[in-house]
Amino acid sequence: MTNTSLGKILDSACRSIQNQIGSGKVANYIPALARVDIKKFGAAILTLNGESAFFGDAYESFSIQSISKVFSLTLVLNQIGDKLWKRVHHEPSGNAFNSIVQLEMERGIPRNPFINAGALVLSDILLKDRTPEASIQTILNFLHEISGEGRIGINHEVAISELENAHRNASLVHFMKSCNNIENTVSDVLEVYCNHCSISMSCEELSRSMLFLAKEGFDPISNKRIISPELARRINSIMMLCGHYDASGDFAYRVGLPGKSGVGGGIVAIVPDVGVITVWSPGLNNNGNSLVGTSALEAIARISNWNIL
Amino acid sequence: MTNTSLGKILDSACRSIQNQIGSGKVANYIPALARVDIKKFGAAILTLNGESAFFGDAYESFSIQSISKVFSLTLVLNQIGDKLWKRVHHEPSGNAFNSIVQLEMERGIPRNPFINAGALVLSDILLKDRTPEASIQTILNFLHEISGEGRIGINHEVAISELENAHRNASLVHFMKSCNNIENTVSDVLEVYCNHCSISMSCEELSRSMLFLAKEGFDPISNKRIISPELARRINSIMMLCGHYDASGDFAYRVGLPGKSGVGGGIVAIVPDVGVITVWSPGLNNNGNSLVGTSALEAIARISNWNIL
Amino acid sequence: MTNTSLGKILDSACRSIQNQIGSGKVANYIPALARVDIKKFGAAILTLNGESAFFGDAYESFSIQSISKVFSLTLVLNQIGDKLWKRVHHEPSGNAFNSIVQLEMERGIPRNPFINAGALVLSDILLKDRTPEASIQTILNFLHEISGEGRIGINHEVAISELENAHRNASLVHFMKSCNNIENTVSDVLEVYCNHCSISMSCEELSRSMLFLAKEGFDPISNKRIISPELARRINSIMMLCGHYDASGDFAYRVGLPGKSGVGGGIVAIVPDVGVITVWSPGLNNNGNSLVGTSALEAIARISNWNIL
Amino acid sequence: MTNTSLGKILDSACRSIQNQIGSGKVANYIPALARVDIKKFGAAILTLNGESAFFGDAYESFSIQSISKVFSLTLVLNQIGDKLWKRVHHEPSGNAFNSIVQLEMERGIPRNPFINAGALVLSDILLKDRTPEASIQTILNFLHEISGEGRIGINHEVAISELENAHRNASLVHFMKSCNNIENTVSDVLEVYCNHCSISMSCEELSRSMLFLAKEGFDPISNKRIISPELARRINSIMMLCGHYDASGDFAYRVGLPGKSGVGGGIVAIVPDVGVITVWSPGLNNNGNSLVGTSALEAIARISNWNIL
Repeated sequence: MTNTSLGKILDSACRSIQNQIGSGKVANYIPALARVDIKKFGAAILTLNGESAFFGDAYESFSIQSISKVFSLTLVLNQIGDKLWKRVHHEPSGNAFNSIVQLEMERGIPRNPFINAGALVLSDILLKDRTPEASIQTILNFLHEISGEGRIGINHEVAISELENAHRNASLVHFMKSCNNIENTVSDVLEVYCNHCSISMSCEELSRSMLFLAKEGFDPISNKRIISPELARRINSIMMLCGHYDASGDFAYRVGLPGKSGVGGGIVAIVPDVGVITVWSPGLNNNGNSLVGTSALEAIARISNWNIL
Repeated sequence: MTNTSLGKILDSACRSIQNQIGSGKVANYIPALARVDIKKFGAAILTLNGESAFFGDAYESFSIQSISKVFSLTLVLNQIGDKLWKRVHHEPSGNAFNSIVQLEMERGIPRNPFINAGALVLSDILLKDRTPEASIQTILNFLHEISGEGRIGINHEVAISELENAHRNASLVHFMKSCNNIENTVSDVLEVYCNHCSISMSCEELSRSMLFLAKEGFDPISNKRIISPELARRINSIMMLCGHYDASGDFAYRVGLPGKSGVGGGIVAIVPDVGVITVWSPGLNNNGNSLVGTSALEAIARISNWNIL
Repeated sequence: MTNTSLGKILDSACRSIQNQIGSGKVANYIPALARVDIKKFGAAILTLNGESAFFGDAYESFSIQSISKVFSLTLVLNQIGDKLWKRVHHEPSGNAFNSIVQLEMERGIPRNPFINAGALVLSDILLKDRTPEASIQTILNFLHEISGEGRIGINHEVAISELENAHRNASLVHFMKSCNNIENTVSDVLEVYCNHCSISMSCEELSRSMLFLAKEGFDPISNKRIISPELARRINSIMMLCGHYDASGDFAYRVGLPGKSGVGGGIVAIVPDVGVITVWSPGLNNNGNSLVGTSALEAIARISNWNIL
Repeated sequence: MTNTSLGKILDSACRSIQNQIGSGKVANYIPALARVDIKKFGAAILTLNGESAFFGDAYESFSIQSISKVFSLTLVLNQIGDKLWKRVHHEPSGNAFNSIVQLEMERGIPRNPFINAGALVLSDILLKDRTPEASIQTILNFLHEISGEGRIGINHEVAISELENAHRNASLVHFMKSCNNIENTVSDVLEVYCNHCSISMSCEELSRSMLFLAKEGFDPISNKRIISPELARRINSIMMLCGHYDASGDFAYRVGLPGKSGVGGGIVAIVPDVGVITVWSPGLNNNGNSLVGTSALEAIARISNWNIL
């Protein structure tokens, strides 16, 4: 596939959903997200053999929110490997992303690393022997390394708002702490988590940063191994089964690729052995996933025939 | 890949787990399953280009149990298409295969077609304008067509025992009927369901019958289209996310392929664009999936590098 | 208190709620209940010292529905005593009357004898060594004995409709049978249960029949002991805590007496050491209890100062 | 009844359970509770006509824990009346005292004021226009008033330990705050709650303090109205239905009186129109209620025939 044909696929797919742009509902629990223009739409495809295609606002930074959980999962798996599964399961939850019911039933062990409770455990593990500031810097350094882009940083207005609105997440952390599944202070865990969710990146940067997941853990641009082939596949399996909360089945059904969404409207999808697709459209559906973004990915997967199933 | 190299992969994988044979616990809720020899082990790989490899008891028939749900899902999707999703969701359940909790929360709409409640709805749809006998014959005819093997049939001892032990499933059907999600009589639905689960097939026959799912709905041996490419991929997505009940995440994590297990100890895994692997080992793990069979598939996927993630 | 003053209390209370008559919603899941005139209103008070007062449709028979569970609980406690509590708990359920969630959590042991699942276990126990017909006759005989009224019987139209609409209850019985908490066939249990709920009685007859519960198990008219003082108090405690499904707290808060409601619009309240009050008004509130009946009982309890708390 | 006969009842009841003393398990989540001598046993009965009887360690102070919720409920009902029920229901919960499941299902409205979540809302209301210190002092002043005993105070070692071990309660408060059912800061609410649970009182003082609940809100010793008759009865109804968490049914069944237990081993039971019984024995049963204390109350109620049912 040449750059030209890649561009044609992306253009064709994005044009097919253009009349949907503006649909859905922008996340409104914090002002910095609520005021994002619902008409924004960007998409970026990068392939393992160096091709790329971009559409619309592909270079504009947005709040990556839960997409950040893929990066922290990678760091944590590199740090402690399969020991992670003593503290977090890797099963779909069947409940909303911030549900506490399952946590009570299963005594403080979250269902997977992508629901909030699970990602809060990841933050707790990243805090091991580090201050919150150092933990956040570790995540940023990792992002700078895998993206080749040193300017990626945190939107502090978002981070402050997230912390001010963190009562549901604080509830989850205190609950898990009462079950001995949190080692650090609740405020430190929330500080790492909220900052981490407040990272801003563009579609282009997200696709670039996750190329290693399309190539069994190896980054084809820097020629560095980021994570073992085995663990890379396992991250993909968790994205496939748990990447869209309680609409993961619908995403697999429609798109057929491992993916991870964020409430900022971004979705990253991995095409194993091929490349990475990122889309951004801030209007969300009822499950908290980008409405137009999902449609765009469905169109791209259909036209490119990249569905892995 | 030649038949020789395919055989070597299978031999090598099966030998690597040979010391586990006999582990787990045979299903004991009906006598006909309870007396199956726990030391049985079979495996069969068929590829789209006509290669094949077999190991151990690959030609011995066993009770396919829930694997049958893949066949009824295919028939129902061919019959009513996406209308099915008004009566069954396609999300992982996060609960045990026979849980009724989710059904009450979601007013009689099962989470997916592979938990018992969902498969009972499939049986209800297959009964549309047909007697139970005709519905069961429709399933058998379909199996004869896609397997090229007219002798596949029902183990009547198993079917009778299943019907005698169907109180939990009867509870699910009555519940859904009270929610207006069952059209036929409870006893007709249970008759179709229990007979259908009592079909006996060998590893070789199961791999043969599901080849169409590895080739986007097209059977490479009979050169017939069994289902549309789109729906074939969707069946695979449901196998990937929901094929192993509340251990689907673990299967995806370890094996990385769409699969479906049955309490008789069989597991079928689809390798898109490559072929189908079936294993059989009657000892089950705590989640009701074949313990040794899962290990064998993990080894085959690792050695062959057929993991799609 | 004289008959005159008793009559004044009842008159005054009933007049205070007269403008509410016609409120609520008549049960409409079966035709025989749906066509009851929502404007019906009756009340009957009988005291231990032989006084009585009646209001409105106090002598008209209506479908007692779940009020019948008090009679079967009495029979079963006389039959097997505290052994009952191995098969049914005596705790408030916190869930709707026909919920199956709790049943799954607690492996087939219902929370109390007044939710449907619990009353179905009572029916199963009444079937011990009896046919369904004999079991139903046992209940009727008991009613004839404690009411002194041999004409009390079953409304067969209601009974047939109940059986035709019993899918939710059938689901509960099959579920409990799968947990080994039902000994007889599902259809026999449902036959006893549905007939039993279809008994017709008037306010006057209900108050008469439950006098023994106001006098520690002793019937002051026939001078017979119906049940031991200890068990009589225990029936009252279950009426107090569980008599109005998930609105039992509200009834205790407003009325402050042990009571039992039925979906036919009747409510019986026990005033220990004093007597029995029965009201009937077919319009139900959102919890399935008589809306105007509860208001009437609240007014009677306030004016008479019979609240036991 | 004379002091002599009251004393005989208490002696006889306490002696009948003496061989049980030392049974159960002392609360061990904080050191100050864990080291209480399991062999302690006290009981105190005060009647409305001035009689009293005491047994064993009736004058020794212990940690009243959840019994304090009766006092805060009284204060809050006096403060805002029935407006309380917009923020807390008054139904039995059917779940453990610290369960968060129900809170998620019912969007942050606790089932009743006696489960932890409900009592935390009471603390939030007591904080209205007051500092935590002033709120705690308000509770103590109220206790001094209704007990006539100005030395009742907080065990600060217990309070500090409670605060250090408050993660489960913090989880509940944050959760309700995310549902807009908490107005003050989480730490202020916890400070009031934990101090309040750490009040030390003796059996004698507890019986004295609750006399008003046996006399429709009127304190017979100080001749003061503490709360209206209507609200007093309603407090009793909540004690009757919800006073022993998910064993409230069992307490009603065995004792038949409104009561409230605390994890320190105390139980207070109200005998309307008669008086108040308090028992203390630190060994708890599986539901967190005093094992021997419940048996003692059962014996007292049986011998005195004070069961209100």
